[in-house]
Amino acid sequence: MEKLRVIKVKQSVLANNDLRADALRKKLKERGVFLINVMSSPGAGKTTLLVDLINRLKDKLRIGVIEADMDAVVDAQTVENKTGVKTIQLHTSGECHLDAKMVDEGMDFLGDENLDLVFLENIGNLVCPAEFDTGATMKLVILSIPEGDDKPLKYPLMFTRGDIFVFTKMDAKILFDFDVDRVEESIRKLNPDAKFFPLSVKANTGVQELADYLCSEVKKYQGK
Amino acid sequence: MEKLRVIKVKQSVLANNDLRADALRKKLKERGVFLINVMSSPGAGKTTLLVDLINRLKDKLRIGVIEADMDAVVDAQTVENKTGVKTIQLHTSGECHLDAKMVDEGMDFLGDENLDLVFLENIGNLVCPAEFDTGATMKLVILSIPEGDDKPLKYPLMFTRGDIFVFTKMDAKILFDFDVDRVEESIRKLNPDAKFFPLSVKANTGVQELADYLCSEVKKYQGK
Repeated sequence: MEKLRVIKVKQSVLANNDLRADALRKKLKERGVFLINVMSSPGAGKTTLLVDLINRLKDKLRIGVIEADMDAVVDAQTVENKTGVKTIQLHTSGECHLDAKMVDEGMDFLGDENLDLVFLENIGNLVCPAEFDTGATMKLVILSIPEGDDKPLKYPLMFTRGDIFVFTKMDAKILFDFDVDRVEESIRKLNPDAKFFPLSVKANTGVQELADYLCSEVKKYQGK
Repeated sequence: MEKLRVIKVKQSVLANNDLRADALRKKLKERGVFLINVMSSPGAGKTTLLVDLINRLKDKLRIGVIEADMDAVVDAQTVENKTGVKTIQLHTSGECHLDAKMVDEGMDFLGDENLDLVFLENIGNLVCPAEFDTGATMKLVILSIPEGDDKPLKYPLMFTRGDIFVFTKMDAKILFDFDVDRVEESIRKLNPDAKFFPLSVKANTGVQELADYLCSEVKKYQGK
């Protein structure tokens, strides 16, 4: 009985969220703002990747960042200090995901009129963030080598819904049993249009390819 | 308005869950069954650690395993094949945590009458599993070296509620910037009674110490 009540509320929340997400996506398209929802496990390297990517892109694109955390501010401070781009912190008060309403309010607070690209760093979690459409233009999922290549089997919704998949900490492959071909194959079974970017921020491999791809996607989106 | 409804339902679910968890804990105590709720991020090494621990303990204790997953069975098969102990799989149908009701039903299904120790491998997630008391005797939280030593700051509930903290993949410390002293200090601030077990299954360091500690805790609990 309890269970049923929870599910009903969740369904109505999800339906309302989808409407709000579509409205946000439309508004962002009119303004030419490209929003990337960045999702991964805790510690997969979201913040480290964002800092490196932003420093490669900030002369070509006007960038903003929304950091989400349950109640810390450490990532927002790191990103702002290391890139100089405008960054705001959203607190979810213990919720394990962002929804479209939170992101819409965050975009207003960030002030997105003069921005080309906004990175949204979601809560570190492979479950809940996959369920909630944030209104983002693109969903970027990070899987780090030490997590193992079985993750698509165990968190299928995340790997079905993502648009591009970044394999981080490739320099650690020497220590871990991670088969890039196998993981790409298991993601493609769920998600035939998936794109893959293996890289290492520390070893400086693959990050420029991802930066170039994102830059070209933003220009395409803006009709330039 | 939506938001408010969700929170109210969640509170009532949590209160009911707490009652059911206490009842389960009492029942297990009467039977002398020690239940360990194992929690971590995806890919921190829960399954690998369990296999190694069980093989060290299975001649001393009668062991069972409950594996939770959203819809895969891969971990249950691995544990059963590699240890020979009775293992069952719980599917949460997309839920990001186990609750006391699911665990109570799982224990019945496992048949815990002749068991001393049951490992419950929770969903890989640092958020939701921390909120739900499963009725376990002990909460074991795994943090792997590649995830980084800032996790207690970012997932404080998990690090406040855990009883013992296992740092896995210590052999990977050469590649990652992870300060064990700093992480222990930040966990102790949240949780003064926390106990720490740094180890590497691959390098075979520290696992026996953890196995010995768990064995003595089970004997103490059973009044032996």
